[in-house]
Amino acid sequence: MAEYYLECITCGRKYKPEKGLYWCSDCGSIMGTLQVIYDYESLKKLEDWKKVFSPKGSIVQFEKLLPVGFSTDIDRFIGGTPLFKFRNKFGIKDMMIKFDGISMSGSYKDRASIIAVNKALEEGYDTIFCASTGNAASSLGLLSAHTALETYIFVPATIPGGKLAQLVAAGAKIISIETTYDQAFDISLEIGLRNNWYCRNSAVNPYLLEGKKTGAYEILVQNKYEVPDYCIVAVGDGTVISSLCKGFSEFYKLGLVEKTPKVIGVQAEGAATVKHVFEKGRPFKPIIEDADTVADSICVGNPRDVIKACSFMEENGGYFESVSDEEILAAIAQLAGETGVFAEPAGAAPLACLKKLLFKGVINPGDDVCLMVTGNGLKDVDALGKMSDIRKYTVEEAYKLFEGVKNEV
Amino acid sequence: MAEYYLECITCGRKYKPEKGLYWCSDCGSIMGTLQVIYDYESLKKLEDWKKVFSPKGSIVQFEKLLPVGFSTDIDRFIGGTPLFKFRNKFGIKDMMIKFDGISMSGSYKDRASIIAVNKALEEGYDTIFCASTGNAASSLGLLSAHTALETYIFVPATIPGGKLAQLVAAGAKIISIETTYDQAFDISLEIGLRNNWYCRNSAVNPYLLEGKKTGAYEILVQNKYEVPDYCIVAVGDGTVISSLCKGFSEFYKLGLVEKTPKVIGVQAEGAATVKHVFEKGRPFKPIIEDADTVADSICVGNPRDVIKACSFMEENGGYFESVSDEEILAAIAQLAGETGVFAEPAGAAPLACLKKLLFKGVINPGDDVCLMVTGNGLKDVDALGKMSDIRKYTVEEAYKLFEGVKNEV
Repeated sequence: MAEYYLECITCGRKYKPEKGLYWCSDCGSIMGTLQVIYDYESLKKLEDWKKVFSPKGSIVQFEKLLPVGFSTDIDRFIGGTPLFKFRNKFGIKDMMIKFDGISMSGSYKDRASIIAVNKALEEGYDTIFCASTGNAASSLGLLSAHTALETYIFVPATIPGGKLAQLVAAGAKIISIETTYDQAFDISLEIGLRNNWYCRNSAVNPYLLEGKKTGAYEILVQNKYEVPDYCIVAVGDGTVISSLCKGFSEFYKLGLVEKTPKVIGVQAEGAATVKHVFEKGRPFKPIIEDADTVADSICVGNPRDVIKACSFMEENGGYFESVSDEEILAAIAQLAGETGVFAEPAGAAPLACLKKLLFKGVINPGDDVCLMVTGNGLKDVDALGKMSDIRKYTVEEAYKLFEGVKNEV
Repeated sequence: MAEYYLECITCGRKYKPEKGLYWCSDCGSIMGTLQVIYDYESLKKLEDWKKVFSPKGSIVQFEKLLPVGFSTDIDRFIGGTPLFKFRNKFGIKDMMIKFDGISMSGSYKDRASIIAVNKALEEGYDTIFCASTGNAASSLGLLSAHTALETYIFVPATIPGGKLAQLVAAGAKIISIETTYDQAFDISLEIGLRNNWYCRNSAVNPYLLEGKKTGAYEILVQNKYEVPDYCIVAVGDGTVISSLCKGFSEFYKLGLVEKTPKVIGVQAEGAATVKHVFEKGRPFKPIIEDADTVADSICVGNPRDVIKACSFMEENGGYFESVSDEEILAAIAQLAGETGVFAEPAGAAPLACLKKLLFKGVINPGDDVCLMVTGNGLKDVDALGKMSDIRKYTVEEAYKLFEGVKNEV
């Protein structure tokens, strides 16, 4: 692991890492989210990084750029997800798709959970908890399963079937609450911290973003340090977008690339709070709105990592866009139908965004674009909504189907 | 690709590969399944194979031992699935789990589908079809999606939600029939061959086993050519078990290992036809039985690859075991709860089998065991059956939960 200190995103106060420290005591849990700061000049000289990193490596290959050591039996199976490349897809000449749906629990959250599990073990905790719309929960449940950690999970009762099934199978202690994700978050934080459990809530635990930033690292390593023009990802609490900005920026600071991709954060029209905060400009102030979208993973009205997201985004030069639920659902089928990548709604939102930005002329067909697909479609099959429309044939009907032309199905 | 010819598993008649040839015309589609034969003495000298293969390589690294060339954009993302290693799990000192649930469509079938897609394109087909209990279907649907192939899928109407969702998203032409898998298979074969579509039914297409054998290759490569004592896998039609036997045997013939693992095929008690045929002994004769099990992937009463499965198994020295549905369902939770590997029912059956064989004293704690987990639990979340039992709390109840002791959940 690397040497580091923590710094408040708002007031800049520096902290030495210590057990139980999650946010700046002066600025509070939302304004005072902490970021992990390394000595990049030293790191730059530490290794010939391009010789260290491999396109097929797991998250473990980035250990010297992370605030935690790896010690579990499954670390080396986290990360290292595919970067698909297609020519002339979706109107883009060089199209990349980073698909984190092919992973232990089927979502991007595995990159954060493995950091949390290792950190909790390192600091001697016996219990770990998180609040989640579903993916962080199922990821933590499965990734902590082989360790001695007891795992408490706070989720809204609306959690999709696939994510709940993963939790049930993993034997996590599930507190399913008839409320929003936003309130489940508050409840978890109060109960978890009072009981001295390790907190795996991305937005308050500064280390989790560090795990997530490896997605950005991998895009650059797997693309042989060629930098795409745009990288598009869905935004809920704001941690993933922050992690992409930070990951790209760190590779720039290490001298591994000469520029960074422009990062675009896509939200659902019904849950676009981070976008609204960003567009109001500095000083960024958290707001709370109602949230309603088919994309459960980003159905967040009180985004906890909004200050970091807006700050990193400003530095990156990227911006936020929103798309409708209809556009998201259409994108699921278009993505799977043209590439074989089956995404959950939030995972398909970047494609919906790309189509919108192509139409607006913001992105051009000649631009290199990378879509970050953060979750597997199997996580939420009900979102597809067309399943009951599939016609069922009798044996006789099936035999007769192809007696004439073949396109009757 | 390698040079090869085809040989009838029953009469030994040799065939030169040609378009549209799937089985021995003397012996018919079940008795006369063909196997792909290579010149192992030449292949042995062709390369220093241990320098060619990498633990992180995809199926593409085995191209010179396969009957097809790779040409699609997603080939190099197929295979290369994790081989987890745990100490002292499930009563076994050195426990390995090969998890093919982390893959493009979430099942072992991707290894076969990628061969079929490449072969269909190579031979100039415009349409491909398969009959499937679900996994082969969703695999083919997603893996053919980015190509120009039109894809017809014949499934029993009982196909689990996750697998159907993948097909719907991929835009495959779905013929969902109110019948068994066994009859859907017959219907598909009649319609598909009549229309001159490429046949991706593992049991009749000899090339698909070749894709599946790479699972065995990977176990040996990823385990640094240390050979486990036992390798356990679920059996439906019989192709996967044949592929493991053949894969291990080929590495032996190439001089890469000095022995082969004993392969154990596990069936559900309600669908154990291959086991029954094997136990009746030579000459192996196909039988048809009723099939009923919670493990949809192996709910097969008329196993099409039974002759090859029994022949290969006899040569391997392994055998078949059966487990109850209750044992399978319990194994899902035990597997996920102790390792984080979330399997569909058929994927958890090998653990149920291991527990039975440990109890019987057939397998001992000191034996090296590899469980082949062939499908992701997200494919069939209803099989878990406990989802509706999860208690939902009101906000007030949730806050009160941990006022006393913490284990009330």
